[in-house]
Amino acid sequence: MDISHIEHLGIAVKSLEEAIPYYEQVLGLKCYNIEEVADQKVKTAFFKVGQTKIELLEPTCPESTIAKFIENRGEGVHHVAFAVNGIEGALAEAAEKGVRLIDQTPRAGAEGLTIAFLHPKSTKGVLTELCEDKN
Amino acid sequence: MDISHIEHLGIAVKSLEEAIPYYEQVLGLKCYNIEEVADQKVKTAFFKVGQTKIELLEPTCPESTIAKFIENRGEGVHHVAFAVNGIEGALAEAAEKGVRLIDQTPRAGAEGLTIAFLHPKSTKGVLTELCEDKN
Repeated sequence: MDISHIEHLGIAVKSLEEAIPYYEQVLGLKCYNIEEVADQKVKTAFFKVGQTKIELLEPTCPESTIAKFIENRGEGVHHVAFAVNGIEGALAEAAEKGVRLIDQTPRAGAEGLTIAFLHPKSTKGVLTELCEDKN
Repeated sequence: MDISHIEHLGIAVKSLEEAIPYYEQVLGLKCYNIEEVADQKVKTAFFKVGQTKIELLEPTCPESTIAKFIENRGEGVHHVAFAVNGIEGALAEAAEKGVRLIDQTPRAGAEGLTIAFLHPKSTKGVLTELCEDKN
């Protein structure tokens, strides 16, 4: 597949209110967007660092997969998202090479991107998102 | 502090021999360097994706911190490294703002970089490396 860069890192945090000041005041990054993604049961905060975004993910209820992640492993990096050219082809190629897909077909993600997740059981432990900006 | 981009992601894997084919054949990245870092008890493999490197870390003995990480949490993202301008000042600023430092002063890291780690207990769960290329 044709990956150009790391589009974003998804980082699970207990509280945006506590995490944003760390990213802004210690690391010196600027939060440029906060949005709730209701169907994922998370509130997200975005920062840009070079080519890559940092997407903080706060669970909005205990049933959120992010809440379960934090319960099991604590706060930390939840997923890595690669920007690909031709996401449909990339997904088909991954499946053909034996990678277990979480999303069988690409779907709409945050910030207008088309996205699909690969299962960490077949990506050496890293929950992996492929994404493409079709706009 | 003045962060320009994500310099690399450190990813813990059980076996480079098994992980490299995934990164090369599925993701289409190219491994450009393999080196053993004896004092960290790891063997590393490097890939470049946009501005950022992916550094796979395989423990070379059971006492390696990477071996313990894998034992406790499984394979996955181990640390995030930010490229900073003026690492000494960045480290002093982090300490002043209450961040717990793993390295009190910068030291030599892989690929000729000057590096220092911040403790995940004070970085919202992300083991964080600061690094600067002084060459």
